[in-house]
Amino acid sequence: MAEKDTVRKEHVIGKSVKRVDAFEKVTGRAKYTEDLCDRNAYVAKVLHSTIAHGYVKSIDTSGAEKIPGVVKIVTCFDVPEYYFPTAGHPWSTEEEHQDVADRLLLERHVRYYGDDVAAVIAENEVAASQALRALKVEYEELPFVLDVHKAMEDDAPQIHEKYPNNVLKHTSIRNGDYENAIKEPGLTKVEGWYQTPTVQHCHIENPVCYAYMEQGRIVVVTSTQIPHICRRVVGQALGVPWGKVRIIKPYIGGGFGNKQDVLYEPLCAYLTTVVGGRTVKMDISREETFASTRVRHAIHFHIISYVRPDGTYAARKFESFSDQGGYASHGHSIAAKGMGCFPQLYPCPNIEADTYTVFTNKAASGAMRGYGIPQAMFAMESHTDDVARAIGVPPYEFRMKNVMPKGFKDGFSKNVNYYDTFRECMEKGRKEFDYDRRLEKYSHQTGDVRRGVGMSVFWYNTGVWPISLETSACRMVLNQDGSIQVQVGETEIGQGADTAFAQMAAETVGIPFEMVHVVSTQDTDVTPFGTGAYASRQTYMAGFSIRQTGELLKEKIIETAHELTRQMKENLDIVNGYIVRTTDGEVLMSLGELATEKLYSLTNNGHLTAESSYQIKNNAYSFGCTFVEVEVDIPGCRAEVTDILNVHDCGRLINPALAEAQVHGGMSMAIGYALSEKLLYDEKTGRPLNNNLLDYKLSTFMDHPDLHAAFVENYEPTSAYGTKALGEPPACSPAPAIRNAILQATGVALNEIPMRPHLLFDEFQKAGLLRSDHGGNEVKDYV
Amino acid sequence: MAEKDTVRKEHVIGKSVKRVDAFEKVTGRAKYTEDLCDRNAYVAKVLHSTIAHGYVKSIDTSGAEKIPGVVKIVTCFDVPEYYFPTAGHPWSTEEEHQDVADRLLLERHVRYYGDDVAAVIAENEVAASQALRALKVEYEELPFVLDVHKAMEDDAPQIHEKYPNNVLKHTSIRNGDYENAIKEPGLTKVEGWYQTPTVQHCHIENPVCYAYMEQGRIVVVTSTQIPHICRRVVGQALGVPWGKVRIIKPYIGGGFGNKQDVLYEPLCAYLTTVVGGRTVKMDISREETFASTRVRHAIHFHIISYVRPDGTYAARKFESFSDQGGYASHGHSIAAKGMGCFPQLYPCPNIEADTYTVFTNKAASGAMRGYGIPQAMFAMESHTDDVARAIGVPPYEFRMKNVMPKGFKDGFSKNVNYYDTFRECMEKGRKEFDYDRRLEKYSHQTGDVRRGVGMSVFWYNTGVWPISLETSACRMVLNQDGSIQVQVGETEIGQGADTAFAQMAAETVGIPFEMVHVVSTQDTDVTPFGTGAYASRQTYMAGFSIRQTGELLKEKIIETAHELTRQMKENLDIVNGYIVRTTDGEVLMSLGELATEKLYSLTNNGHLTAESSYQIKNNAYSFGCTFVEVEVDIPGCRAEVTDILNVHDCGRLINPALAEAQVHGGMSMAIGYALSEKLLYDEKTGRPLNNNLLDYKLSTFMDHPDLHAAFVENYEPTSAYGTKALGEPPACSPAPAIRNAILQATGVALNEIPMRPHLLFDEFQKAGLLRSDHGGNEVKDYV
Repeated sequence: MAEKDTVRKEHVIGKSVKRVDAFEKVTGRAKYTEDLCDRNAYVAKVLHSTIAHGYVKSIDTSGAEKIPGVVKIVTCFDVPEYYFPTAGHPWSTEEEHQDVADRLLLERHVRYYGDDVAAVIAENEVAASQALRALKVEYEELPFVLDVHKAMEDDAPQIHEKYPNNVLKHTSIRNGDYENAIKEPGLTKVEGWYQTPTVQHCHIENPVCYAYMEQGRIVVVTSTQIPHICRRVVGQALGVPWGKVRIIKPYIGGGFGNKQDVLYEPLCAYLTTVVGGRTVKMDISREETFASTRVRHAIHFHIISYVRPDGTYAARKFESFSDQGGYASHGHSIAAKGMGCFPQLYPCPNIEADTYTVFTNKAASGAMRGYGIPQAMFAMESHTDDVARAIGVPPYEFRMKNVMPKGFKDGFSKNVNYYDTFRECMEKGRKEFDYDRRLEKYSHQTGDVRRGVGMSVFWYNTGVWPISLETSACRMVLNQDGSIQVQVGETEIGQGADTAFAQMAAETVGIPFEMVHVVSTQDTDVTPFGTGAYASRQTYMAGFSIRQTGELLKEKIIETAHELTRQMKENLDIVNGYIVRTTDGEVLMSLGELATEKLYSLTNNGHLTAESSYQIKNNAYSFGCTFVEVEVDIPGCRAEVTDILNVHDCGRLINPALAEAQVHGGMSMAIGYALSEKLLYDEKTGRPLNNNLLDYKLSTFMDHPDLHAAFVENYEPTSAYGTKALGEPPACSPAPAIRNAILQATGVALNEIPMRPHLLFDEFQKAGLLRSDHGGNEVKDYV
Repeated sequence: MAEKDTVRKEHVIGKSVKRVDAFEKVTGRAKYTEDLCDRNAYVAKVLHSTIAHGYVKSIDTSGAEKIPGVVKIVTCFDVPEYYFPTAGHPWSTEEEHQDVADRLLLERHVRYYGDDVAAVIAENEVAASQALRALKVEYEELPFVLDVHKAMEDDAPQIHEKYPNNVLKHTSIRNGDYENAIKEPGLTKVEGWYQTPTVQHCHIENPVCYAYMEQGRIVVVTSTQIPHICRRVVGQALGVPWGKVRIIKPYIGGGFGNKQDVLYEPLCAYLTTVVGGRTVKMDISREETFASTRVRHAIHFHIISYVRPDGTYAARKFESFSDQGGYASHGHSIAAKGMGCFPQLYPCPNIEADTYTVFTNKAASGAMRGYGIPQAMFAMESHTDDVARAIGVPPYEFRMKNVMPKGFKDGFSKNVNYYDTFRECMEKGRKEFDYDRRLEKYSHQTGDVRRGVGMSVFWYNTGVWPISLETSACRMVLNQDGSIQVQVGETEIGQGADTAFAQMAAETVGIPFEMVHVVSTQDTDVTPFGTGAYASRQTYMAGFSIRQTGELLKEKIIETAHELTRQMKENLDIVNGYIVRTTDGEVLMSLGELATEKLYSLTNNGHLTAESSYQIKNNAYSFGCTFVEVEVDIPGCRAEVTDILNVHDCGRLINPALAEAQVHGGMSMAIGYALSEKLLYDEKTGRPLNNNLLDYKLSTFMDHPDLHAAFVENYEPTSAYGTKALGEPPACSPAPAIRNAILQATGVALNEIPMRPHLLFDEFQKAGLLRSDHGGNEVKDYV
């Protein structure tokens, strides 16, 4: 028994405790989907279309069927006719809020180069690969379109029958009276077009899953961010009751939103049903992951601002055109979210905004870290610098003047900006980055190699309420030694969620962090319902059910302590794993003693567990900014980030070290987004050209300087533990900050990313920065 | 939506629905422990002692360590000094009710031939086997003892220091005044000694487990009947908090009580800790299973009865001597249970009973189907026939007169015999077996080959209350399609428990059987606490928590239906998966519609689950009888069962087909027990002689006729679903019935099982039934 003075309340929230899965992941012992699959599993491979648009007329499987080891071939002529959606959104019982169900397991109407037309099941990889090559497909080719604006033209190929001009959806915002407001005298008009590219998530672990049948039900073990949603979509795709599907999610090697779509799980589930329930594995290659899973929406923006001489906005107009690719996936919600921040970031009474999501004959665009905000921020925050420069106000001051004020309340989400967060973050960043000194230093350069500083803010909200359901559920089980298991539907996808959950549970129940065992594997049969990892919702949303369930468990424990000690419940607390009488601090028993006594009591036995679900009807703003220094080699047409700092207000930090790691990851992703990454398509065939990690220039730590993160910890008042979004925000603001730094260094405004040497060459040439012996030659982009 | 008249209450309890795991098991797809183990797992093997008693002086590991592939060798000099118990009993916080903790992971003091002295961890089977052979052990040999009576002598070798005369425990019953009662004039004294053998469970799947570490905790996947108890014992054996241990139990290939002991799980758990948490597998061979796991207690009984001319008992005396082998395991509780039924089966006012459990230098005896009752029934029911014959009353009538009456209440367990069950079962058996006709027909035979009929009753109680804790817990989860998952700590061990659980849950919640998904795998991290499969407790004990949890879930569903329809809760019911208004039978919605609406409600979302634990403070008598016909070939010294019928009152049948299968299995086991099975030990060395399935004469379906089962379904009033024990009872009464049939056929009373030809030869010879050319030779038993 512990002595009175050894039992003190220890707070674990806010401490950089070691990740619960650190040892497993560092030693390679953590089990991922592939590690768990039976080695006797059948191997399935997908035949992808080699045209960008058209119809499969026939598939000759005779040659493939003769290959030894081939078990079964399924073509687009065989699959059930259940159209299903793939986006990882909570289901809605109202049809108008459901995701678009526009695809079958395999497609006769091929909508992009790489679409899925057949699948082969074989005893091994070799036979499956041979069979793929032996399949003979006859296509009826149709014209295809890769460009959003061309796709909207009247004579463009129709990609989905239901959508004229290929417009999946168009939404608008109208505030005030734009047309009238722009007539105000003395306004400066600033107009710009901004282009962001198609990029891919490049998670280390490609999508992988295997499926088998058990007791007439289909079990899919998969690398997904959204096990409970995946269950529903598999049910929809196969036309089976959702309770007949079970999804198990082991550790996963990253997702970044790609695994927030249901990818090959439905097909895999279907394939096991055609081989009598034998295990079928689908291990998707890197090339397929690029070409046939999901990508980030390339979005083309058009922004017009009318600004007064005093630096305030009179009226603003916004248009965006989002490239959806061949299938709806997350559809319009990404473009809509991007547009959604336009009237909020720099409030202005007169706004016109329109956004279009448009099908093209490319891989489907889906969720990716930031969910439309990195695109929108590139456009909006590039534009902000353009506006500031146009009226001769330093961009930092311009932002300080115009950015969302404290107390701002969004009419739709009811989000309130409870603090003057933007300004606090900018102020902190300015100081930590020594921005003023650098800005002054780099303001008068003339050489070939110049440095510059730039900045950008970002806006991000947390979770999906009120657009969709927000709910989380949690179960806790008390063990005989006073330790607990915690189960939640929210998923560890590499970000450290399990560790944060353990910290929250320890804090609420009153036990040491080491005594919390988070059940990392989600299994839809037994894991409480939760929709998974997306929208940076993990700590915020799971927090509600963890806190609520922790309090429930604590109540039961205190009730038991009362039963065993006959001390008043009101005088009892759990402190660091001990039952303590609060009136004098006396330690009455350890939680282990209590649990053991209760579990084995012959008088009044009981197993102490608690479970609850919590519907969340809040959202929360998560804000911050990036400060960047670049070095631009003008004749070399190269820009390099030499220093970078992100400042975040994501509320209270649960684990500062993990928070910092999250920020570093997002910044790294954003640097690639700004400078090097773009998935290229052949204009003649629609074929992806660089769908591999050699040709696709993924940013690595070789490409960026030390990454710096700082935090403004304003306790989020709506939150269970004071937290709000941090998963996606770090990827939102670096790209425009880099662009603005290049602008500051060179005077050249680049309105497209990635800002590759090709682009710099063109723009520097136009700006007259290149010497004539270079400038005189016409250089073609390699695409 | 279903029409009003299509929704009718369907009762699934009492129906022979197909096993939920039938397809998996028939097709070989069900995953057992070995199927799940990583193929890269290290292999561990145990070095067993080659002496029956003594001390390990040294183990030379140098040769073994040089063998390529050998990873680590652990000897009895290395293991931690935590003495632990192995019996699968619920823990008690009171020391006097705890099982005897008398062993270490590996033993320096070797107590039987086959004891565990060292373990080898290697990369593969071959290296592990080679290493075992290369280990050199030096022993200090001590005298050993194999016989219970010799072990109790003062000069016997002392096997455990704490137990003089090797008596683990001696308990007594004294009712009335035996010494005075036997003085009553006119009494007939009947005295007999009865011997039962050491036998083994012979489950198809040998004990197998593997262990690894995850997040600093030890995970053991094992073929056990008792996952939650196994967790506790592993914790005790390794001296780690129990919450640091996680046990996972997949499908198991039989246990019959052997896997109600914690066998090699603690050693396996320890071995993973010495190789840094790498997976270590222990796959125990059949030879080791016989020699070094657990066996059924051989018990020697002595019974004296004083009976009046009217066929009533005046006084009775009982003594038994139970062979415990080298370690305590389940210890005295088996002999005590056997003795416990003595005063109950045929109540008599004057009783003296004593039972002794005695250590010998043999494999430890543990739980085995029947838990002391098959032994006790052989003695008591052989004796009953002897008594009946002694006073010239037909055995059937004698039993009808004396057996426990309706209303009998046991003072200790408070069990009440609510029905005149014994007589109902006997009456039913007599008719169905056509006993009277056969008895008459076989009463006057004289030839070499004769037939005979015999019978026996049995007594069995259900579960372990009030000796130990009885508790069960259950969790149910409602899916979007209205189906549910059910989790309980009680385990499917091949008996069909999962199917019975599904039937119970379907009945209580009000949904079709097919919509219940029982989570078959127990995982102590998430499975509600339950102590597992033993004491024929599964349907009785789990029934309480399933019913209670089902009602809780139903209440939540009805509450939700009220929320959604605003009909009065009192007017709502769940019928066959639909919400029905009871006032007019109107079908309001399907449960799937309700679950989907509730789960995705933007107004008032919730995930409907229910969990509860239930402490059971009842026990219940389970009774029945066996009728047997044998054919005895006197010169051939062979007895064969030609017809057999078991009649059971196990309360209401949940699933008649499964109940029948249980009875068949128990009868088969009992026929082997009666006629062929015995584990033999070499008197000179203590070595087991027939520890393999070739030499050990396990009864198979080739050895018995068609097996017949009949039931008397008296609803058990204390039970959640009217059920009581059926798992073990079928194995209890066939052996004495066979013995009594041989007696009826030949007039020879055999007081020892198995009634092998050797025994028949000796006894027939003594009885003068064999011709002199045979009888003149002295034939030695082969042991």
